Amino acid sequence: MSDNASPPVQAGDKPVLFQRLALIGIGLIGSSIAHAARANNIVAEIAISTRSAETLAEAERLKLGDAYSLDPAEVVEGADLVILCTPVGACGKVAAVISKSLAPGAIVSDVGSVKGSVIKQVAPHMPDGVHFIAGHPVAGTEYSGPGAGFATLFENRWCVLTPTQDTDPAALAKLTEFWDRCGSQVEIMDAGHHDLVLSMTSHIPHLIAYNIVGTAADLETVTKREVVKFSAAGFRDFTRIAASDPTMWRDVFLHNKEAVLETLGRFSEDLSALQRAIRWGDGDALYDLFSRTREIRRRIIAEGQETAMPNFGRDEGGLAPTDEDTGE
Amino acid sequence: MSDNASPPVQAGDKPVLFQRLALIGIGLIGSSIAHAARANNIVAEIAISTRSAETLAEAERLKLGDAYSLDPAEVVEGADLVILCTPVGACGKVAAVISKSLAPGAIVSDVGSVKGSVIKQVAPHMPDGVHFIAGHPVAGTEYSGPGAGFATLFENRWCVLTPTQDTDPAALAKLTEFWDRCGSQVEIMDAGHHDLVLSMTSHIPHLIAYNIVGTAADLETVTKREVVKFSAAGFRDFTRIAASDPTMWRDVFLHNKEAVLETLGRFSEDLSALQRAIRWGDGDALYDLFSRTREIRRRIIAEGQETAMPNFGRDEGGLAPTDEDTGE
Repeated sequence: MSDNASPPVQAGDKPVLFQRLALIGIGLIGSSIAHAARANNIVAEIAISTRSAETLAEAERLKLGDAYSLDPAEVVEGADLVILCTPVGACGKVAAVISKSLAPGAIVSDVGSVKGSVIKQVAPHMPDGVHFIAGHPVAGTEYSGPGAGFATLFENRWCVLTPTQDTDPAALAKLTEFWDRCGSQVEIMDAGHHDLVLSMTSHIPHLIAYNIVGTAADLETVTKREVVKFSAAGFRDFTRIAASDPTMWRDVFLHNKEAVLETLGRFSEDLSALQRAIRWGDGDALYDLFSRTREIRRRIIAEGQETAMPNFGRDEGGLAPTDEDTGE
Repeated sequence: MSDNASPPVQAGDKPVLFQRLALIGIGLIGSSIAHAARANNIVAEIAISTRSAETLAEAERLKLGDAYSLDPAEVVEGADLVILCTPVGACGKVAAVISKSLAPGAIVSDVGSVKGSVIKQVAPHMPDGVHFIAGHPVAGTEYSGPGAGFATLFENRWCVLTPTQDTDPAALAKLTEFWDRCGSQVEIMDAGHHDLVLSMTSHIPHLIAYNIVGTAADLETVTKREVVKFSAAGFRDFTRIAASDPTMWRDVFLHNKEAVLETLGRFSEDLSALQRAIRWGDGDALYDLFSRTREIRRRIIAEGQETAMPNFGRDEGGLAPTDEDTGE
C-alpha cells in the first residue's frame, strides 16, 4: 500500500461506506473527522459522545453529528464504525465502557499519536467479531476543541494504520477506504515502528518546542516582553506547536516513554556535540551541519508535505498589534 | 523610543534621507534594504559591493543598485550611509578595507545578529568624524541571496540599534528615521543585552532546529523517507529555520559564544527536568509546563508578531507532491 496508495477517492456518487459512525471524543481530530465524513458522504449518520457536557453541547451547537450522548456505550450501539478520539491515556477506559455495546462486525479504531500503548489498552476489551485496528491520522493544528476541526485537515496527509497478525483483511480494507475518502494516503506500519518514527517526527519536536518556550518564560535576565517583541527571529515558530493541547501531549509522553527517551537521548547527544563545537570555536563542524540540514526541507517540500513560501507563507503584512494589553 | 515608536512614515513626498547608500553584502537582508530604500524613496542612489563576482552580477541583473563593484572601498566613496550586510565574522575585515575611503560625516551601520562582537571588530577602524552605530533588523526568511529580498521584509518588525556612550545623537536620529521609513519599529538597546535577548529568541531556536534536523537525518532506525513523509506532525516546522544560511549562522555562534552557551545551558537544564518527568511518569509536571506555554504565543499574536491562522496559515490545500524523485 504505502508508496503506491491511489489518489484520494472523490465523493462523487459513491454510496456511503458506513451506516453509523460513532465518535468518542470530539476535539480537533474528532470534529475534523465529522466534517470530512459528512463532506465526502462517507457515512449516513454520526453519533457523538464526549466526557464534558459543555463540549458535547458545543458539538451539538456546531451540528457536528446526528445523535449526542455523554454515555459512550449509548452512541456505539448500532455503529459499524467507532473511532476513539480521546487523549491516548483514556482509550483503555473508554474501551472497557463500550465493550458490551459494540455491534457484531463493527470496526473500532482510534486516532492516537501512540499505537503500542493504545493496542495494549484497547485490544483486551474487544469482543469476538469486533475488528479493532489502531490508527493515526498524521495531521493537526495547534488549536483544540470541537470548533477547531475542518473537513480538509486530512487531505494529502498520511494516515498510519497498525494492524496486527490477527487483523481481518476486509475490515482493514474498509478502514483504509474510509481514510482514503477523507483525503488521506494510508500507510500500513508495525505499531512499534510507528511509535519510533513518530517520536522523531512529532513527539520530540513537541517536547523541544514546549521546553524552549518554558525556558524563555523562566529566564530572569530577559523579560517576557522582550521574548515576545523579538520572537520573529526564530522563536515564534516554536510557539505554534507549544500551543497544542496539554492533556493530549501529556498522555503521548507518558505512553510512548521508551521511544521518546531513546530519541531524546540521541537529540541530547547531538546537542552536546554542537555545544562543544561552539565552545571550542569549531566553525567547520557548525558549517557542516548547517549545510546538511537544508536537504531534508527540500525533500519535505518536494513531497507536498510543506509549503515553499518564505516564512510558511505567513500573512506578514496583515499582522498588526491588537489593542490587547500585553505589557508586563 | 521603543514602545512609543511612531508608526512607519509613509513614502509620500518626503525628500530622500541619504544621497548615497552603500551596501556591502547583498544577500537576503542587503537586497531587502535595497528594495525598501527604493520603494520608500529613502535614498537617491544605491551602490553595491559583494565578495563574489557571481553574486554581484546577480544583484546587477536584478537592478538592485545604481553602481556595483567588487571593491567595497570603491562603493563607500561619497556614501553618506554605509550598511555592512555580510556575515558577522566578515565585518572587521570589511571595516579595515573601507576605513580610508569613508566620507567625513558618513553613518556606518550593519545588520548582524550579534552586536558586541561587531562593535569590537568595526569600531577600531572608524576614522574620526564617521558615525558607527551597530544595528540589527530582526526580520528574515529561510531563503538567502540577492534574489531572496523584498521591500516589505522589515514592515512591523523591530530593528535594534545599539549606540554607545559616544554615539552622536543626530546620527542616531537619522539612522532611526531610515529604519522607520523602511517600515520598522526602532528599539535602542545595550549591545550586551541585545546579544542575550537574541540568544533566546533567535540563536538557540536556530541551534535547536539545526540539531533536531541533524538528529533525524542521522537515525539509523528511521529512514529519511519516513522522516519526510510524517514530518507534518511537527518536525517540518523546524526545518524552516534549519534551512537558513550556513555561513551566517556559523558566524553567529562563533561570535555570540558566551550568551549562546549560557542560554543553551538553561535550555538543557530544563530539558533534563522534562526528561526526568517522562522517565518517572510525572504527568502533572508535564501538564503544568504544557499549559503554561500557550500564553506566550497568545501574546506574540496580540503584538502583531505572528499570525493566528492555524498552521501559520500554510496553504495546505495547495501542497502537492512534485515529480521530483525524493526516494532513498
